[in-house]
Amino acid sequence: KGDLKQSDFRMVDAEIPAIANGEVLIQTLYLALEPAMKGWMENRADYVSPLEIGDVMRGYGTGRVIESRNDRLPTGTIVGGSLGWQEYVVTDGKSLPVNVLPNDIDTPAAMGVLGVTGLTAYFGMLEIGKPKAGDTVLVSGAAGATGSVVGQIAKLKGCRVVGIAGGPEKCAWLKDVAGFDAVIDYKNENVSEQIAIHCPDKWDVFFDNVGGPILEAALNHLNLYSRVVMCGGIANYNNTEASPGPNNLMNLVTNRGRMQGFIILDYLPRAMEAIEALMGWVASGDIIYQVDMQEGFDNIPRTLQRLYTGENLGKQLLKIADPV
Amino acid sequence: KGDLKQSDFRMVDAEIPAIANGEVLIQTLYLALEPAMKGWMENRADYVSPLEIGDVMRGYGTGRVIESRNDRLPTGTIVGGSLGWQEYVVTDGKSLPVNVLPNDIDTPAAMGVLGVTGLTAYFGMLEIGKPKAGDTVLVSGAAGATGSVVGQIAKLKGCRVVGIAGGPEKCAWLKDVAGFDAVIDYKNENVSEQIAIHCPDKWDVFFDNVGGPILEAALNHLNLYSRVVMCGGIANYNNTEASPGPNNLMNLVTNRGRMQGFIILDYLPRAMEAIEALMGWVASGDIIYQVDMQEGFDNIPRTLQRLYTGENLGKQLLKIADPV
Repeated sequence: KGDLKQSDFRMVDAEIPAIANGEVLIQTLYLALEPAMKGWMENRADYVSPLEIGDVMRGYGTGRVIESRNDRLPTGTIVGGSLGWQEYVVTDGKSLPVNVLPNDIDTPAAMGVLGVTGLTAYFGMLEIGKPKAGDTVLVSGAAGATGSVVGQIAKLKGCRVVGIAGGPEKCAWLKDVAGFDAVIDYKNENVSEQIAIHCPDKWDVFFDNVGGPILEAALNHLNLYSRVVMCGGIANYNNTEASPGPNNLMNLVTNRGRMQGFIILDYLPRAMEAIEALMGWVASGDIIYQVDMQEGFDNIPRTLQRLYTGENLGKQLLKIADPV
Repeated sequence: KGDLKQSDFRMVDAEIPAIANGEVLIQTLYLALEPAMKGWMENRADYVSPLEIGDVMRGYGTGRVIESRNDRLPTGTIVGGSLGWQEYVVTDGKSLPVNVLPNDIDTPAAMGVLGVTGLTAYFGMLEIGKPKAGDTVLVSGAAGATGSVVGQIAKLKGCRVVGIAGGPEKCAWLKDVAGFDAVIDYKNENVSEQIAIHCPDKWDVFFDNVGGPILEAALNHLNLYSRVVMCGGIANYNNTEASPGPNNLMNLVTNRGRMQGFIILDYLPRAMEAIEALMGWVASGDIIYQVDMQEGFDNIPRTLQRLYTGENLGKQLLKIADPV
């Protein structure tokens, strides 16, 4: 609990086991770091099975089959799956399921905008936020991997989009590159005042990745029949004690607002619909994405911590080994 | 702001004006007191027009036409409308619109279970709560005029219903008379512990009239895909400063919960549908209601305050004059 520390983890060296018939040896290439991981470590999230002390840390990764006794997964195959925080993985492809990725795919993109992060943005915005052309859409954590895609999808749907992010670099990228209509720097500006300025007709959809004081500030400016997409609450993930919620929830009553949580797991059966749309928008340049690539297995805890300090700009990935 | 006091109001004597052609003189018989009134006085609720210092306090009442120069509203007609806190009202029926009530109607019932309170329970429960047979439904302010009808509608829809109310008298009435499956006395029991006991499969719908710590306790025990109907937050209406919200809103994310505010105004075009259903259930004895009748114009502030202290048992009405 509390701030993530290197000492929360133990680094273990072990022999790479020989593979049996039907198995493959995968070398991990990239690991994806997610804000939700802190909750998994604390077993706060009951939508995933609990982690025990001593378990390999859970996490999505991509890797390359470097040794194979399995016809479906020949040597050289690029795969994605819940590889965990380990440099080598042995699986028969079922005990730990893996998906085969096209060999020509941009792997980092596949782990961000075309992966769970992009799906979260797509279904959260469209299915929970239900934006209409002309709506004002407010996004917190806007420079993050999810938030930046959320805002660009809202633009594609004809909305006016206002992002909240930390620091001038992120804000400039959102405005100049990602095409947000306005940006609020929560580290240097009064968020509630700036929402009032940049959302003169209030907001219709608030996609919240952050929670805490930013959620409270946003709830001062909701329009009638507005929707809050509750995607996460990274503001509080490193807290040791539960933090008070917004003091203005009653604004949801007077404005008939809806606040709804969601987990991308529920939409995975519809994943292809989102991936096709996102691939099209990426190809056409309508959606720009960023990858924040760090390197080195030893740097995993420090790289995860970047999400909670807001150091990352875009999807937080870690390169474990060089792709060929 | 703060606790409601007699001195927040000024009692004014004025001449009853002579009525012009087309006008009627109405004598107020009953006034309805609503939890929302504190918000109206503080102009916290922008769904109604603001009240200025010196205005007659807004409020629903029923009255009798005692003098008429209007063919539509002959002497003796019983009417309902936003009569305000006054013993006599002059209107042409349009400047201050009034509805004609059947002369044989049970006026107090019409102001509670068949009035705005019953409509709030009906549409809030069915349209926002969307209960399914077999669901567990939790209700706060359960012995109040809205809460008690909410629970009984949920029972009619095949749900298991657990009520939260203050004190043994209210709890006994809910269990023994209104047919709730279980009751929690928030004044004498640990609400979160009792919810865990009485909702062994957690709750699917929480109809919240209260907010504050009871909302937080409830959010510890929500089921997957559950709904919170946000009807009001009487726990905080007398506070001078905004109170912190629940510290466990993230449970809405992990459980994909929906929390939605509503105002009955939005459903008034469909009022007849609810009134017909409620009249049927009252006639068949499926819905039992209580009226907490106080008396005397001078007692208005004290009677309104009963709602915030929880002294009322059922719909809070005040008799101003004897019906003939």
